[in-house]
Amino acid sequence: MRTSIATVSLSGSLTEKLTAAARAGFDGVEIFENDLLASPLAPEEIRARCADLGLTIDLYQPMRDMEALPEERFARSLRRARHKFELMRRLGANTVLVCSSVSPDAVDDDALAAAQLHEVASLADDFGIRVAYEALAWGRHISSYDHAWRVVETAGHPALGICLDSFHILSRDSDPKGIEDIPGEKIFFLQLADAPRLAMDVLQWSRHHRCFPGQGGFDVAGLVRHVLRTGYAGPLSLEVFNDVFRQAEAGPTAVDAQRSLRLLQEEVGTAAPPAPVVPTGIAFAELVTPDAQPVTALLGALGFTRVARHRGKPVDLYERGEARVLVNTGPAERRDGTRLAAVGLTSPDPAGAARRAEALLAPVLPRRRGPGDAPLDAVAAPDGTELFFCASPGGEGPDWRADFTADTPAPTGPESCRIDHLALTQPWHHFDEAALFHRSVLGLGPQPSVDVADPYGLQRSRAVASADGRVRIVLSVGAAPADDTVHAQHIALATDDVVAAARGYRAAGGRLLPIPANYYDDLAARYEFADGELETYRDLGILYDRDAHGTFRHCYTPTVGRVFFELVQRDGGYRGYGAPNAFVRLAAQHTARP
Amino acid sequence: MRTSIATVSLSGSLTEKLTAAARAGFDGVEIFENDLLASPLAPEEIRARCADLGLTIDLYQPMRDMEALPEERFARSLRRARHKFELMRRLGANTVLVCSSVSPDAVDDDALAAAQLHEVASLADDFGIRVAYEALAWGRHISSYDHAWRVVETAGHPALGICLDSFHILSRDSDPKGIEDIPGEKIFFLQLADAPRLAMDVLQWSRHHRCFPGQGGFDVAGLVRHVLRTGYAGPLSLEVFNDVFRQAEAGPTAVDAQRSLRLLQEEVGTAAPPAPVVPTGIAFAELVTPDAQPVTALLGALGFTRVARHRGKPVDLYERGEARVLVNTGPAERRDGTRLAAVGLTSPDPAGAARRAEALLAPVLPRRRGPGDAPLDAVAAPDGTELFFCASPGGEGPDWRADFTADTPAPTGPESCRIDHLALTQPWHHFDEAALFHRSVLGLGPQPSVDVADPYGLQRSRAVASADGRVRIVLSVGAAPADDTVHAQHIALATDDVVAAARGYRAAGGRLLPIPANYYDDLAARYEFADGELETYRDLGILYDRDAHGTFRHCYTPTVGRVFFELVQRDGGYRGYGAPNAFVRLAAQHTARP
Repeated sequence: MRTSIATVSLSGSLTEKLTAAARAGFDGVEIFENDLLASPLAPEEIRARCADLGLTIDLYQPMRDMEALPEERFARSLRRARHKFELMRRLGANTVLVCSSVSPDAVDDDALAAAQLHEVASLADDFGIRVAYEALAWGRHISSYDHAWRVVETAGHPALGICLDSFHILSRDSDPKGIEDIPGEKIFFLQLADAPRLAMDVLQWSRHHRCFPGQGGFDVAGLVRHVLRTGYAGPLSLEVFNDVFRQAEAGPTAVDAQRSLRLLQEEVGTAAPPAPVVPTGIAFAELVTPDAQPVTALLGALGFTRVARHRGKPVDLYERGEARVLVNTGPAERRDGTRLAAVGLTSPDPAGAARRAEALLAPVLPRRRGPGDAPLDAVAAPDGTELFFCASPGGEGPDWRADFTADTPAPTGPESCRIDHLALTQPWHHFDEAALFHRSVLGLGPQPSVDVADPYGLQRSRAVASADGRVRIVLSVGAAPADDTVHAQHIALATDDVVAAARGYRAAGGRLLPIPANYYDDLAARYEFADGELETYRDLGILYDRDAHGTFRHCYTPTVGRVFFELVQRDGGYRGYGAPNAFVRLAAQHTARP
Repeated sequence: MRTSIATVSLSGSLTEKLTAAARAGFDGVEIFENDLLASPLAPEEIRARCADLGLTIDLYQPMRDMEALPEERFARSLRRARHKFELMRRLGANTVLVCSSVSPDAVDDDALAAAQLHEVASLADDFGIRVAYEALAWGRHISSYDHAWRVVETAGHPALGICLDSFHILSRDSDPKGIEDIPGEKIFFLQLADAPRLAMDVLQWSRHHRCFPGQGGFDVAGLVRHVLRTGYAGPLSLEVFNDVFRQAEAGPTAVDAQRSLRLLQEEVGTAAPPAPVVPTGIAFAELVTPDAQPVTALLGALGFTRVARHRGKPVDLYERGEARVLVNTGPAERRDGTRLAAVGLTSPDPAGAARRAEALLAPVLPRRRGPGDAPLDAVAAPDGTELFFCASPGGEGPDWRADFTADTPAPTGPESCRIDHLALTQPWHHFDEAALFHRSVLGLGPQPSVDVADPYGLQRSRAVASADGRVRIVLSVGAAPADDTVHAQHIALATDDVVAAARGYRAAGGRLLPIPANYYDDLAARYEFADGELETYRDLGILYDRDAHGTFRHCYTPTVGRVFFELVQRDGGYRGYGAPNAFVRLAAQHTARP
């Protein structure tokens, strides 16, 4: 199906918006009136710019307060409509959105509303224009799609149809099944938006908190299925008012928008991109650093051994059990100290995973970086992290370890160790995009977003994970856009015995993040522990949490550059990440900062 | 009355919070449990730190889920309470806040709630601690203050009283009059918070959007009057959960908080700071610039003449009619180009205005900057703007013009000109503070905040004005904290004939901000104009607005540094600032940027 986006969904000047929409693969746009009014381009120039970019102008929007009005007021509206129809002719737009009246002057009279809409449609028809009438959720007298349709049906003009908007329908908890009673050819337009489930004034909710389908709590796909059963053949068009998208760069937002429609089309069956290939494990985490010493000292204390070196690049492989960390001292694009720059994901079908990613607009990275490299498939996540799709040992596809020359034999120790999860800082403006990216591209299931109290502002975090928990990534975001590059990332290592692991680390010269004694006094007030257990935690700085399934014990190393490590022990099927302890950890990290 | 603040209202580590509260003049604090848990200081050390800062610990908070519980659950709560009472003894805190239960386990049984609270109070009493029981607005079974009071009365323990919280009472629209039925000695604590009137889930509203009294929509003073009639003798304590304050520096937030309580105390009659002295006009606006040429060229084209020079500093006075602008090329603290750094306010009692400002914690600036300067009273606004209180011509107090030597005779022209309003950018974290500052310190009335769509994010602006409109200041704020120093400021000049003024400016070589033709096509669709009128506006770039009272015509100069000028004409009592046109102006300014 054709895809379209309202210019109000993107930031910048009108031409920036059009360029971003075209580059992201949209077929058309809705032109929001204020974007046109504020543009120095004449309507004919906008038309030419769109044509040049391969975009059609699918809708001009919105016209307001056009129906159920007292006569004198209606005459003024009709006068204004004529001006707008002349403008639309210059613009080359042939569908106009008319919202249901919100004016206090509007009267509760469906017959009058129908008669006046008939008059508006007749005038539009003279200009070759169709009128798509939409019920606003906060319309004065007409606020539901079925009511709007009854009025349109009564008006009975061929140039008059309805516009359906998923936000207005789903925010009111209207049943979208009734859409199937509307003939498809009378649905002139379909606007899509999702939104988080917020108990708040619907107008404020609509104007500030809409998001792209799949990023909120509405069943947008279910609504679209009803619409498709009517035979609707127009575009799927996004109209999203969102305070964050207004500030974000238009280019990435448009890509995020287009990705949401590709996923939606897969869900409703109008498109079939390559199927998702869910990763089965974390092959490696790669740290880029201008100085390997501090981080390799940390890895050493954590029991990692350097087991191999890259054949052509300054990259070393450190391993402990199933946990593998690459330390890269090669030239980094961003010189901001030690950071977690890449993740290797074990995939049952690396090439298929890459095809899926590309179809969902993940930027594809070159398969070979240097002449001696294995040709690995890789894409960039919204935060810039490079994701490598790695063959399972003995599976199809090139082996990423083929680039490495064995150095020391792999160590064998009594304790298990694997990467439990990775925590990656997301760009503040793209937090919603990040969750949708990981869900749609990698097939990871997102958990609800949680607020975490840092001493200097609320952070948010949201985990995405595979069903078996072998791949877990925590997406986190600071309190303000400026925090993007200071916020820390971390690698959590799962062990069967966190106390032994912490002791071993300390015995090897590692320092653990000190946790305040007050925290342990509170633990003693909340839970009963075996003799000496709490003293052990207090001594090592181990934090403790419980959920309905089991328990979680965890402790932290100091931070190097932007990266620290966590040692964790999950018991009895604990599903979380210790979020109730995060305020203690964050405060302790601020205290520990030099 | 004694004033107190909950540590959760301020950002930073516990010791940063305590220091900020003490420096702002608070007598005590409420210690929020998580702040203590995350602190590396032992309770005894916190106690000593508070004593050293002259702060009492008025409340330890909160304890939760302590009443109306099944037996086994209650036993656990009591065990936890004993731990907390031991902690409070070490801390030297003798009142604890207990919130009404939210646990799904809690039962709807007031007798059980009373019996269990009696037991908690008996245990507390053994430690010399009082229990202040508070109804949360979202409490499971007990959610109103009168219900909480009935339970406390039934429990009948001397160590059990209630805590009143203005948010929980006013967010539910409970009538606070019933507070007078509670004996004052049984009101153990009073927590105050205001909030904007938002139609949203009360828990989210409470946790993210509280603000200091006078910054929201609640009648906090009215509630306090009821409390005072009971004979309540405890502190006025602020408990404000606010996402912005969590990010802001603790020092200024604490001052803002203390100012809100001083104003509140004036309103309820428990304190009598010097009365407000409302300014009667704008004596001057002062621009600081590293290069006078661009801005003096602009002033020249706007019809200003240099009429005087400062005797001891590189400051020139430009005048047109009643509008006066100082251009200062002296050393500026912040070297960020041309900016609006100071405002002279004509005051019927400059010394009284300064006393008022000082009593409300405005930072007082030195009266004399140099040996030859007139001793002017001045304070700093939250955005750093220096406010000078200037005697009316012929009035009491030193004349600010005495520092200047007349240069050219004052020009006489046919057109009137005065400063209509000043628009000042506020620091993103202190927008609510700015409105309260201008209201409490200067006695200016705030208007509602409006959203303005800049192409790169929503801005907000809020006007404060004297009743007669002679002093109008528009406080504005960008979409994100990073916008603080890039956002423009402006000086709006009122004239009787904006068309003549714009033509005169252009004839003198001035350039006007070009406004898109599309805007005028839309004006033609919305209004009827006299022949040629719209063409004149289009030619000059004049924008047009109407309200219920009259009309507004306005146009803009280019921006120099961070400053531009606006020419405005108000007719028929128009009260606004042309906000509906702001999106056009902002887009045009982005287009015009080199």
